[in-house]
Amino acid sequence: MFQLHHKLAEDTWPVLDLKLCKVLLMKNAHYPWLILVPMRENCRDLFDVPASEHALLWQEIRHVHEALKVFTNAEKMNVGALGNMVPQLHIHIIARHSGDAAWPAPVWGGPAKMYDEQGAETLIQQLKQVLKTEDKLDIPSNLA
Amino acid sequence: MFQLHHKLAEDTWPVLDLKLCKVLLMKNAHYPWLILVPMRENCRDLFDVPASEHALLWQEIRHVHEALKVFTNAEKMNVGALGNMVPQLHIHIIARHSGDAAWPAPVWGGPAKMYDEQGAETLIQQLKQVLKTEDKLDIPSNLA
Repeated sequence: MFQLHHKLAEDTWPVLDLKLCKVLLMKNAHYPWLILVPMRENCRDLFDVPASEHALLWQEIRHVHEALKVFTNAEKMNVGALGNMVPQLHIHIIARHSGDAAWPAPVWGGPAKMYDEQGAETLIQQLKQVLKTEDKLDIPSNLA
Repeated sequence: MFQLHHKLAEDTWPVLDLKLCKVLLMKNAHYPWLILVPMRENCRDLFDVPASEHALLWQEIRHVHEALKVFTNAEKMNVGALGNMVPQLHIHIIARHSGDAAWPAPVWGGPAKMYDEQGAETLIQQLKQVLKTEDKLDIPSNLA
């Protein structure tokens, strides 16, 4: 049984579940920062996901990446699977803008900025709309 | 015409070219740190690569990731596409070990450690052997 690692549960709010991945919002108002967690047991590195689900994983990363990029009008998207501290595979997808709190450095390691409660709730509802797929992910034929 | 960004050329040594990506070794002996650069013009974000080449990109990332993991007996692999500073898409694939220079933090931003010339040359020759594919990448049927 897949269970979300407690550290990821503490540091994020749930946005929605795609077919393979949970989409989570980091509790850090400095950046629009989403995390994808494949709902599979015993995955730590990216390629621990079963090969039969690689195409789906790629498509969900792509979907969230492109939707967040458009929604935030991001100047640059950052994608990373690090996981040195939390031993459950999770993929960071972060919208970056010139002049954001860490720009142009990576976001990891800096202090978080709290969301106000209403701001977080509004953002999560917007993200749900932007990210919902109704199983209509645009999968190119060579990845289907 | 694709041309490697001068900053990437300065900071790395070439290892080999796969079908889509150049594989480069970072000039930082702290970590076995490879960089993949798709040889396509005008790509900055991961999904700027033409969709028809996404399956190949995924397979090359997978190939380098798995080969470097085995070769270095890595405890954890880090994968990232950041590119806030260098505006040419490049994907970091880094083998991490407990107690390495940045562990458990990400590697970016710390000072580099020089390779000695012979050590770098030997490592590059070993990596060429480990990474050569002879066009036999193991592509699962659902990604072919």
